[in-house]
Amino acid sequence: MLLDRVNGPADLKAMSLAELRQLAAEIRRFLIEQLSVTGGHFGPNLGVVELTLALHRVFDSPRDKIIWDVGHQAYVHKIITGRKERFPTLRQFGGLAGFPKRSESPHDAFGTGHASTSISAALGMAVARDLKGESHHVVAVIGDGAMTGGMALEALNHAGHLRKRLIVVLNDNEMSIAENVGAMANYLAKLRTDRTYAKMKNEVEHLLKRIPSIGGKVARTLERAKDSVKYFWVPGMLFEELGFTYFGPVDGHDLAALTTMLDRVKECPDPVLLHVVTQKGKGYGRAERAPDKLHSVTPFNPETGKAEKSSSSLAPSYTDVFGNAIVELAEQDPRIVAITAAMPGGTGLTKFAQRFPDRFFDVGIAEQHAATLSAGLAASGMRPVFAVYSTFLQRAYDQVIHDICIQNLPVVFAVDRAGLVGADGETHQGAFDVAYLRTVPNMTIMMPKDENELRQMLYTALQLPGPVAVRYPRGAARGVPLDKEWHTIPIGSWEVIRQGLSPVAVVAMGPMVALAEEAADRLAEEGVDPMIINARFVKPLDGDFLLRLAGEGWALVTVEETALAGGLGSAVLEWLAGHGLHGVPVRCLGLPDQFIPHGGRGELLRAVGLTAERVADAVKDVLRAGRVPR
Amino acid sequence: MLLDRVNGPADLKAMSLAELRQLAAEIRRFLIEQLSVTGGHFGPNLGVVELTLALHRVFDSPRDKIIWDVGHQAYVHKIITGRKERFPTLRQFGGLAGFPKRSESPHDAFGTGHASTSISAALGMAVARDLKGESHHVVAVIGDGAMTGGMALEALNHAGHLRKRLIVVLNDNEMSIAENVGAMANYLAKLRTDRTYAKMKNEVEHLLKRIPSIGGKVARTLERAKDSVKYFWVPGMLFEELGFTYFGPVDGHDLAALTTMLDRVKECPDPVLLHVVTQKGKGYGRAERAPDKLHSVTPFNPETGKAEKSSSSLAPSYTDVFGNAIVELAEQDPRIVAITAAMPGGTGLTKFAQRFPDRFFDVGIAEQHAATLSAGLAASGMRPVFAVYSTFLQRAYDQVIHDICIQNLPVVFAVDRAGLVGADGETHQGAFDVAYLRTVPNMTIMMPKDENELRQMLYTALQLPGPVAVRYPRGAARGVPLDKEWHTIPIGSWEVIRQGLSPVAVVAMGPMVALAEEAADRLAEEGVDPMIINARFVKPLDGDFLLRLAGEGWALVTVEETALAGGLGSAVLEWLAGHGLHGVPVRCLGLPDQFIPHGGRGELLRAVGLTAERVADAVKDVLRAGRVPR
Ligand SMILES: [Mg+2]
Ligand SMILES: [Mg+2]
Repeated sequence: MLLDRVNGPADLKAMSLAELRQLAAEIRRFLIEQLSVTGGHFGPNLGVVELTLALHRVFDSPRDKIIWDVGHQAYVHKIITGRKERFPTLRQFGGLAGFPKRSESPHDAFGTGHASTSISAALGMAVARDLKGESHHVVAVIGDGAMTGGMALEALNHAGHLRKRLIVVLNDNEMSIAENVGAMANYLAKLRTDRTYAKMKNEVEHLLKRIPSIGGKVARTLERAKDSVKYFWVPGMLFEELGFTYFGPVDGHDLAALTTMLDRVKECPDPVLLHVVTQKGKGYGRAERAPDKLHSVTPFNPETGKAEKSSSSLAPSYTDVFGNAIVELAEQDPRIVAITAAMPGGTGLTKFAQRFPDRFFDVGIAEQHAATLSAGLAASGMRPVFAVYSTFLQRAYDQVIHDICIQNLPVVFAVDRAGLVGADGETHQGAFDVAYLRTVPNMTIMMPKDENELRQMLYTALQLPGPVAVRYPRGAARGVPLDKEWHTIPIGSWEVIRQGLSPVAVVAMGPMVALAEEAADRLAEEGVDPMIINARFVKPLDGDFLLRLAGEGWALVTVEETALAGGLGSAVLEWLAGHGLHGVPVRCLGLPDQFIPHGGRGELLRAVGLTAERVADAVKDVLRAGRVPR
Repeated sequence: MLLDRVNGPADLKAMSLAELRQLAAEIRRFLIEQLSVTGGHFGPNLGVVELTLALHRVFDSPRDKIIWDVGHQAYVHKIITGRKERFPTLRQFGGLAGFPKRSESPHDAFGTGHASTSISAALGMAVARDLKGESHHVVAVIGDGAMTGGMALEALNHAGHLRKRLIVVLNDNEMSIAENVGAMANYLAKLRTDRTYAKMKNEVEHLLKRIPSIGGKVARTLERAKDSVKYFWVPGMLFEELGFTYFGPVDGHDLAALTTMLDRVKECPDPVLLHVVTQKGKGYGRAERAPDKLHSVTPFNPETGKAEKSSSSLAPSYTDVFGNAIVELAEQDPRIVAITAAMPGGTGLTKFAQRFPDRFFDVGIAEQHAATLSAGLAASGMRPVFAVYSTFLQRAYDQVIHDICIQNLPVVFAVDRAGLVGADGETHQGAFDVAYLRTVPNMTIMMPKDENELRQMLYTALQLPGPVAVRYPRGAARGVPLDKEWHTIPIGSWEVIRQGLSPVAVVAMGPMVALAEEAADRLAEEGVDPMIINARFVKPLDGDFLLRLAGEGWALVTVEETALAGGLGSAVLEWLAGHGLHGVPVRCLGLPDQFIPHGGRGELLRAVGLTAERVADAVKDVLRAGRVPR
């Protein structure tokens, strides 16, 4: 195996092209073997095998900086930069991360997980290089999907202006996670498929040369025309207009062509964009044919491509429950429209898109635009539902404040992946949305304890005259029966799950309600019987309820799977202080003030202390504390 | 006066072109008269007089929707939509807003204040129109500066793809607030000035028609060439590539040309972009010559253009103090670079830009890119300082989390306009940064009580190995002497301003320290003597200090000019609860859970209850409360 001999990029430089081709095949087999066991991002990595080898052959990492946009396509890079032995631990707690991480290897020049950041980071590094008088190369590798993200275009605009030496490799596989949308995608498709561009340029230049001298004004026009034609017939005009020199398209699976092209762009003193066409899932038939499905995989049988049966419950995912509920509601209310930023499948909107193609909008990787598009729809009497992961809503924060909440427009945010997401790690945890949304006036925030409540919350949200976030976790719901009828949940009302006899209430949010019930079961053995409250609204809180509890001398334990700083517990403390109710003992459990790495959700919850045992401890602790004497 | 007869857009329709020209002149005089008294956005409005008149003549507001990007250029629109009598109250408490506001007039189709949102909102309205079977027009008016914002490009990309009937008017005055930067700006300049585009197209088409039939392959090439040339020689190629039909450039001060063009684009069934060239400050010589200086004005003498002498203190602004400090520090440390998103003057970086042009980066209206560019610089060993208003940092929230804080990169955020900003109102108040930054791990947050401390904080921030926000208010500092030497402030340490004899401490942040001192002076008359603490770090808090205070039985009053939800008070409450220290009476004063409108800072502070009197009341209240008996 050639792969056994590769312990760093230097080992590629001695190889012949034939050997590199063999290595590419070995890496594909390695990826299929490994990911069929661990799961992970599959299609994107199969697509960049040759590109990664070519980059590491032509450039000299870590001296030269290679910056992967999004980063889910960096497995091959990790394999050949000394981390192949760690692949059995991929995306597992304490194991290899699924994205580049500066702390993991000097070859990971810039950490990532979200899209469209690479050109900005690379430009920063190129500027620093020049200021420091260094001479290395900086290469950003960005997908066609990520290229539609606003910040990538901001960065192109600035880079084209600064004219720093910088290489942008556009890895064009004709899709982001789902099929690409947008004019940029059409434009790239034209560059790829319409041979007219290159051919016409040659033919017209040839033609112009053959026309005999006509003299006078026409001749002068012709001269200018020759210059201009040369300029105008360059494919990649759009990038050229932004100040980049465009090269390509080049076949991203042709190692010879790739290395030749990379050697060429390496010599350019200005910003260049190299357009590389790759095929997502390349080399694994099932992935080539259905690259969206095999973008990210759970463990599967490599022979059949089928996912291994998991032993998990038969409960549907929260995402699926949302996806069904919005279709049902949209059948009844023609004002309902759905918006996603390049995640139709991930957010559960596939069914909606099929049923209501005219009312479904996939805007591409463009959360900012998605939010303000929703604001425009709401201002015109529609009922937009923007389905988005908690972590990606961070991208639209100003739009949430400035375009939606200030104008109190009825936009519903279906905030999926709220709380810990597991294997994707730091960059994807839905830890901050409660804090960053709670501080914004006019916003209502809810989280359901189960999937039935999620449905009623979505219904409730769609009746409200202002902005609402309904947040729910990744993964399986609880398998509870679903109400036949829709009904609204009174805004700001909490729900008593268990009455309790001890003067302590556990105020829990979302999946933490079940954890609180588990804690109460444990506590029963010790004769402690707390009230369990489903804090289904984080904003507004149930003030009447809190007033009663405080008045009757209850102690409180809050439990949430969100950052403690600014979260539910913080809101409860603010409310009590705001009403002069000091002296109520409160313990707040939630995510500590640190980024939570990748790992299984259960492992992560244990690591941060969100366990039934710790909830039970907090209940006993706060009961012991009681009220402090003066 | 024709202006007296204009009470709504309908009144424009009956006017002749000559009358409209006279009206334009009258409106310019009105603007100069009014703004010389009230202050406000001057240059941008002088520049769009004819454009606004033409829009309201050709379109039928409020049935047709006109959406102003940024909105500081909507004064003329306000004048002719029934609000001219309210101009003496412009930007004053309870008066006319400086930006479009849906609540102010049905003609204000979409509220704004930040840049680059208009195309997204307009597209949402166009989509809603088509879904509802309506037929009105939707027009977004966006500046050349705002067009470089990522979300505008996201929206162009999506609009070009959807092909909805939509009109984008590009108001190109060759600048944003400062001179424009970026490849897009160069591109627009080329469209404006290089007549080659339009002329060459005509000449080459003419030439191709004159070439006699050559027969065979060349003839076929020629036919294809004709088609392609037609396509390629369109100016505005970049917009055409994104799916828009480009019209222009048209002289934005020529009413006849404008109305002709608008009538034409009105008929287009697809997205169109009309490129209008205007001159910022048009019609007022001083503003034409120095449009950056007269972008926004304080009251001035219309004869001389000079600002009226204000009676305010001789203290420098915090912005200027920052601007001087960063120059001094950069003299000593070549790693320091400064970044702004189109606000070199507003953020005080003009001096830095002159002194260190190679280390200064104005990225255009592109806060997301600015943040991640800073991350790239920091990852390469530089010491980037991103100077940005609190409200605009909201645009870069995901980049703060994902690119800077997760990687713990030493980026310094110089967060200007933190707290209430006054006349700009809701969209510009710096109310949320403490909450949204405090929840992010690895972030350090400080705020100085005066300008000397600001300097030392900037110095301190530049020594730290991770991300730091130094936030400071708009306007004049306190006029204190400046230390000769630089020194670091111990991270997380608070400062006792006044020792106090009563068992109550006022924990105040930034300008609220002075307010607390004023409150203490009042309280002295009543025999109450609180401790005054300068809570110069919001994150981390001074835990040792809090522990001591709680242990010794002190009551606390927190005072901050930020949103209470998630702010300093909230952090103190969390800390106490986290250490089991319930029973400490705490009152939190700060901004309530509502958007704060425009007005004088003093008026606004009174309106929200941030006065010395209220602080004194809270101190007495919390003293009375004392500890609650069990
Ligand atoms: Mg792609
Ligand atoms: Mg402009």
